[in-house]
Amino acid sequence: MVAQGVHRMVRLVETEVECCKIVSEDVKDAVVLEGSPELGLIGNILGWLLVEELKMRQIGYIESKDFPPLAVLYNGVAIHPFRIYSTDGIVLFLSDFIIPPNVAYDMATAIVNWAERNNSKEIITFNSVVVREKTGEISGAANSPDMLKSMADMNIPILPFGNVNGLSGTLLTRSMVKNIPASCLFAEVLNQYPDPRAAATVVDVLNKKLGIKIDSEPLLKEAEEIESRLKELANTVQEGQESPAYM
Amino acid sequence: MVAQGVHRMVRLVETEVECCKIVSEDVKDAVVLEGSPELGLIGNILGWLLVEELKMRQIGYIESKDFPPLAVLYNGVAIHPFRIYSTDGIVLFLSDFIIPPNVAYDMATAIVNWAERNNSKEIITFNSVVVREKTGEISGAANSPDMLKSMADMNIPILPFGNVNGLSGTLLTRSMVKNIPASCLFAEVLNQYPDPRAAATVVDVLNKKLGIKIDSEPLLKEAEEIESRLKELANTVQEGQESPAYM
Amino acid sequence: MVAQGVHRMVRLVETEVECCKIVSEDVKDAVVLEGSPELGLIGNILGWLLVEELKMRQIGYIESKDFPPLAVLYNGVAIHPFRIYSTDGIVLFLSDFIIPPNVAYDMATAIVNWAERNNSKEIITFNSVVVREKTGEISGAANSPDMLKSMADMNIPILPFGNVNGLSGTLLTRSMVKNIPASCLFAEVLNQYPDPRAAATVVDVLNKKLGIKIDSEPLLKEAEEIESRLKELANTVQEGQESPAYM
Amino acid sequence: MVAQGVHRMVRLVETEVECCKIVSEDVKDAVVLEGSPELGLIGNILGWLLVEELKMRQIGYIESKDFPPLAVLYNGVAIHPFRIYSTDGIVLFLSDFIIPPNVAYDMATAIVNWAERNNSKEIITFNSVVVREKTGEISGAANSPDMLKSMADMNIPILPFGNVNGLSGTLLTRSMVKNIPASCLFAEVLNQYPDPRAAATVVDVLNKKLGIKIDSEPLLKEAEEIESRLKELANTVQEGQESPAYM
Amino acid sequence: MVAQGVHRMVRLVETEVECCKIVSEDVKDAVVLEGSPELGLIGNILGWLLVEELKMRQIGYIESKDFPPLAVLYNGVAIHPFRIYSTDGIVLFLSDFIIPPNVAYDMATAIVNWAERNNSKEIITFNSVVVREKTGEISGAANSPDMLKSMADMNIPILPFGNVNGLSGTLLTRSMVKNIPASCLFAEVLNQYPDPRAAATVVDVLNKKLGIKIDSEPLLKEAEEIESRLKELANTVQEGQESPAYM
Repeated sequence: MVAQGVHRMVRLVETEVECCKIVSEDVKDAVVLEGSPELGLIGNILGWLLVEELKMRQIGYIESKDFPPLAVLYNGVAIHPFRIYSTDGIVLFLSDFIIPPNVAYDMATAIVNWAERNNSKEIITFNSVVVREKTGEISGAANSPDMLKSMADMNIPILPFGNVNGLSGTLLTRSMVKNIPASCLFAEVLNQYPDPRAAATVVDVLNKKLGIKIDSEPLLKEAEEIESRLKELANTVQEGQESPAYM
Repeated sequence: MVAQGVHRMVRLVETEVECCKIVSEDVKDAVVLEGSPELGLIGNILGWLLVEELKMRQIGYIESKDFPPLAVLYNGVAIHPFRIYSTDGIVLFLSDFIIPPNVAYDMATAIVNWAERNNSKEIITFNSVVVREKTGEISGAANSPDMLKSMADMNIPILPFGNVNGLSGTLLTRSMVKNIPASCLFAEVLNQYPDPRAAATVVDVLNKKLGIKIDSEPLLKEAEEIESRLKELANTVQEGQESPAYM
Repeated sequence: MVAQGVHRMVRLVETEVECCKIVSEDVKDAVVLEGSPELGLIGNILGWLLVEELKMRQIGYIESKDFPPLAVLYNGVAIHPFRIYSTDGIVLFLSDFIIPPNVAYDMATAIVNWAERNNSKEIITFNSVVVREKTGEISGAANSPDMLKSMADMNIPILPFGNVNGLSGTLLTRSMVKNIPASCLFAEVLNQYPDPRAAATVVDVLNKKLGIKIDSEPLLKEAEEIESRLKELANTVQEGQESPAYM
Repeated sequence: MVAQGVHRMVRLVETEVECCKIVSEDVKDAVVLEGSPELGLIGNILGWLLVEELKMRQIGYIESKDFPPLAVLYNGVAIHPFRIYSTDGIVLFLSDFIIPPNVAYDMATAIVNWAERNNSKEIITFNSVVVREKTGEISGAANSPDMLKSMADMNIPILPFGNVNGLSGTLLTRSMVKNIPASCLFAEVLNQYPDPRAAATVVDVLNKKLGIKIDSEPLLKEAEEIESRLKELANTVQEGQESPAYM
Repeated sequence: MVAQGVHRMVRLVETEVECCKIVSEDVKDAVVLEGSPELGLIGNILGWLLVEELKMRQIGYIESKDFPPLAVLYNGVAIHPFRIYSTDGIVLFLSDFIIPPNVAYDMATAIVNWAERNNSKEIITFNSVVVREKTGEISGAANSPDMLKSMADMNIPILPFGNVNGLSGTLLTRSMVKNIPASCLFAEVLNQYPDPRAAATVVDVLNKKLGIKIDSEPLLKEAEEIESRLKELANTVQEGQESPAYM
């Protein structure tokens, strides 16, 4: 019913900023989550989990000539590669491709404009820190001392120094300019590959922050599947029976 | 007579979208097929088969500065590298080069505008899934639940998840925005090389969908020729007698 | 006297198409030849031969910011890298550099506009087919069945299928749109290197088509010189005495 | 309190030059320092030292679509990657990323425009010279003979010839056009890696020039930490126990 | 005093052509020399020699966003990387970086416009021919038969055929269009490295052409220094004591 949801709407508003156009319903006073894939795909994995667990409804999408030509299949139905979902007081901007760097500034501006017009309460983004050994701890950063304090009050360890790359980084500074509180949650990853186990570590904090009750179980199961497939592949390769398929 | 067909027309309409221009007769209420080459060249191979078997007439072409400089020879006559053909109720957009990614969005928009103005019934695109071992089965996806159901009714297995790359992916989402039903048929391929045998597996479904009777025999013959040439080449190389010519 | 010829003209007309500008005298009812370098440099080699043998007069040039920065020396005089020559009823567009792909569409449009305004009889371009073993035969293609028939009448074998790359390919389709007959003559080459011997095989056909009498002897001599230099180099390298100079 | 400082301002002025926009308070009659990272990151390392030691207040930032998508964390608060700081009579333009070459001209123009409007006394930039062996000496250059003399009067050795790359180079010439005195201080580095020890050698000269009293101790400590970590890594690698982590 | 010379001028005229702007005093009826670095850096080396030996005064510069970010140090003073100098009847356009190819057309147009407005007598550019063995002879080419004859009258051997790359090539054709006589002097070089000895061979001809008396001694000395440093390096490398420093 996802795609149909988009079609029947009549109050679609367009927020256009040069490179990209947000076509979406307005949702007032929401918390805005952003889930575009950085190292480990944390934001993207969490976004899909929220869509499924909270049965979020698609309320719009972002379109741009600068996106890679791509449709995403969801139960056999093609959907936009960058979609906007909503459920009680939560809005999710979910992209299934890495945002091209030359698009990040305009896209962050468009999202922040949307958030400003809709009086969004705050913006939460996701990213990762590459570590040598995982401790299972998540950490956070914010675009203002107040926001940082509210994270400390929730016992979220602060990531004091470092760079926040990609759309989530630009969102933090673009929202700061408009006085919209924003924060970023970082999961630990070992490398750039999709890491549902790392994404799962963020679920508890997110539950607390949003007052929701999502189960991280599906992510752990997904992680196990990936790991068992990798083990199988390693065995196969060792036995020299076949090489991995193209693509 | 193909090229001449284009010249004698007086009702050529231009649908221009920034990067590219569709110059074509209008054909009302048709089913629109799109055959641009993705992995395995499925759409392109099927397109040429349809042109030959249905003796489709060229009704136009797409031109763009962003296309590679290229003419295609057809029985010695140079034709546009992206042509539009028509026969009873079917219109085919057929490209002989891989659509540059930076052109896909505008081109999909132009094609969808053309389809909207001509009240096209639906859009069918072709693509492929890379597999380790072929089962010979094709699968499908659509840009709306209704369209998906009509595929299920034809016993076409649904491809539930994955990415649809290239023009066919962008066509699915751009047509969704205009409420034009669109679907994609996927053939199994092992790699990126032209695969007429894979294209042949789509012919039956296409016959059913379009109410036509095309023979997949020419594709199977073409596949055999390719395979025998490859075998020959393998032998030659093994015997070390000559290296393949530069091209 | 070449460069001076350009200076004294007062009827220079400018045909401008975005990326490039044709600055040239008008010549009515001519056959237009195009000689830009593709694999084997056939068109360029033939163009220079025509200039010398027919003592063609330079009537203009094409200029563009998108050309590589380059002047060509001709008997010590710097000339434009893309020049236009004329003699009794023949006009030659001769480029000494490979046309950048992003320029080909606009340049073909500019040349075709020039040809249309000057009521040019037809356009002849040159290209090559890469073969494993040469048979010495040339082949042809055209942008209309009529034009193709006139080639068949001259006993020129037709190249039925394939791609025509570069400016000559785009010229075939751009001229088709304006109903200007155009053809392409293909010489056989073994690789991408300049091949005067291959160009020489085209001379007979060109003589018949244009009603001229050019001698291919200079090309054969040039080919012998190249071949003897290559043989020398091969010997030198074998003896390990010196490596080829940087250039 | 850094980010908050930006929010409460009401006299923010925008200096826009095509590619980038300076959003900043005005500060009159100041000495302007520029610290963008070149080889050795001298300017950036010195900039951060000044911010901390002089407790400089952020008064603005530069934003641009052409910057890499990036936020920088400072005590857990996300800040713009290119910030402007101020304290008694000193203004610092501090960037945490290498300025893209295509941005340098416009950015230098914007900074010089800001300096002109604010009647800045002079501009000081930082760069490095790659040497085979360090002597510990810094050297200087200027954009006018007067400025050069004032450096000689401070016993700063002059770097007579060479190229000044990057934003600092362009700032020297763009300020010259507006008659704003500017100079560059060069530290010796062995390679392109961050070199706090090299940056420390500039501190004494800077203290004299600015009439401040900064301690280079933190940089020497940072250098020791880097060096000891490198030594550790070298030992580890030698013992073959582990490979360095990704990123 | 170079930079100061620029500052005190009040009759600076701007010749702007899209990509670049000439900011310079006007100098009437001069011979214009152009010295941008091609293979061997002949023009650049000669240009610096002229500046020093003729004590030329800087009268302007060219600026462009498309130049690399760069200042050049001259006795410790930062100067524009592309400067214009003058002395009795001679104007020199001197660049210290390789002109980006996408800039060459517009820059040549700007220089030719400046020359036209200032009624410049002629333009002389410098380039090189790569040879296997040096004969010490220079050769010339021109943009008109008249100009070529005047070179022959000075016993300068003519370079009959070949390509003239870079700004000097484009200057030859752009000036031809405006009927400004232009020539190019070619020195023999063995490779692309700076070759002051090759530049020295051009000095005699230049003296004759310009009626000046420059000594090529400084270039020969510079060549000796380069050669002795290279020999030293070769010895050092052979003895395996150290590797050359970065940059």
